[in-house]
Amino acid sequence: MSAAEETPGTEDMPWGEVTPEAARRLLVAAVEAFAERGYHATTTRDIAGRAGMSPAALYIHYKTKEELLHRISRIGHDRALEILKAAADREGTAAERLADAVRSFVRWHAERHTTARVVQYELDALGPEHRAEIVQLRRESDATVRRILEEGAAAGEFDVLDVSGTAVAVLSLCIDVSRWFNTQGRRTADEVGVLYAGLVLRMVGVQK
Amino acid sequence: MSAAEETPGTEDMPWGEVTPEAARRLLVAAVEAFAERGYHATTTRDIAGRAGMSPAALYIHYKTKEELLHRISRIGHDRALEILKAAADREGTAAERLADAVRSFVRWHAERHTTARVVQYELDALGPEHRAEIVQLRRESDATVRRILEEGAAAGEFDVLDVSGTAVAVLSLCIDVSRWFNTQGRRTADEVGVLYAGLVLRMVGVQK
Repeated sequence: MSAAEETPGTEDMPWGEVTPEAARRLLVAAVEAFAERGYHATTTRDIAGRAGMSPAALYIHYKTKEELLHRISRIGHDRALEILKAAADREGTAAERLADAVRSFVRWHAERHTTARVVQYELDALGPEHRAEIVQLRRESDATVRRILEEGAAAGEFDVLDVSGTAVAVLSLCIDVSRWFNTQGRRTADEVGVLYAGLVLRMVGVQK
Repeated sequence: MSAAEETPGTEDMPWGEVTPEAARRLLVAAVEAFAERGYHATTTRDIAGRAGMSPAALYIHYKTKEELLHRISRIGHDRALEILKAAADREGTAAERLADAVRSFVRWHAERHTTARVVQYELDALGPEHRAEIVQLRRESDATVRRILEEGAAAGEFDVLDVSGTAVAVLSLCIDVSRWFNTQGRRTADEVGVLYAGLVLRMVGVQK
């Protein structure tokens, strides 16, 4: 699966939130290049070339390679947080909301695995300010999962061993899907999501 | 923590199984360089320089950069499999053996997180034969965890939703510790291991 097919935008228009069109194409090219060779081995010339553009044309949209990585990381983290918040804020029991969070978070990491890997593994390549901004978004994701666990515990639905540790484990389990998931593999993204939702409910003491 | 402090060998002599001493030093330098800049952005000249050696001296021990990566990956995967097999083969109930496997596998991934990241994230950079060899070791790790789950289910100790899916999840949860674990963080490697052993027992239906 190419990065163009698995980006955080709509299926029809990957990274559709990025305009103008040239800026979007450059972002798609950057995800592919970073995923294949790593951030440090990729030049802005490589990225421009993949997008069928000149280095000068790239420079109109992104001043540096780090700006491209930051844009990818920001959009990816915004989307991840949005998915978790939507599940946390919906109607339903804590168990339903936790299962929904896990299913949709897993699906995103499976379907968008190239993007997710770049976002996760190249965090150290961000400059200090951009890194701090992304770390803040990650804290909010963490807090969103903790909130569901606390609400479930308060309602007597969950029996949680360690709220913050379990939140870390739940997110980690879902994020790591992007490392091993294979679109040619035995399980679809949805199947992994359903399996993991069941395992996570057990982690919080809901036995089915 | 530098790679020198967190390698698969003994605490006193990281990568102590690698001889002669120059070959060992080059391996330590390669882990550090790959972790910092990625495999593709690292040259054999960089690695030799870090080890305080000339490119020609490196060439005596390793013909290519890929050979270094293969050696690192092979030793790392051998050690991971050894940890899992030791836990699977010890005396005790399936629950005790599963908890032991998780605790020791987590501890390795936390303490050796730099090495583990290189081993996990640069798999695609291996040549086809080396990659096939490593994939085989990963299948054996998977089979070792599956075996404990099957034995526990057969003994009536576990109630497992999906043996192969749960085995994937257990390994994935432990491996991803190498991505987020921070030696300056709130929890020690041992504390994460104990927490995760409890969560994994719940995944297999052992409620405590």
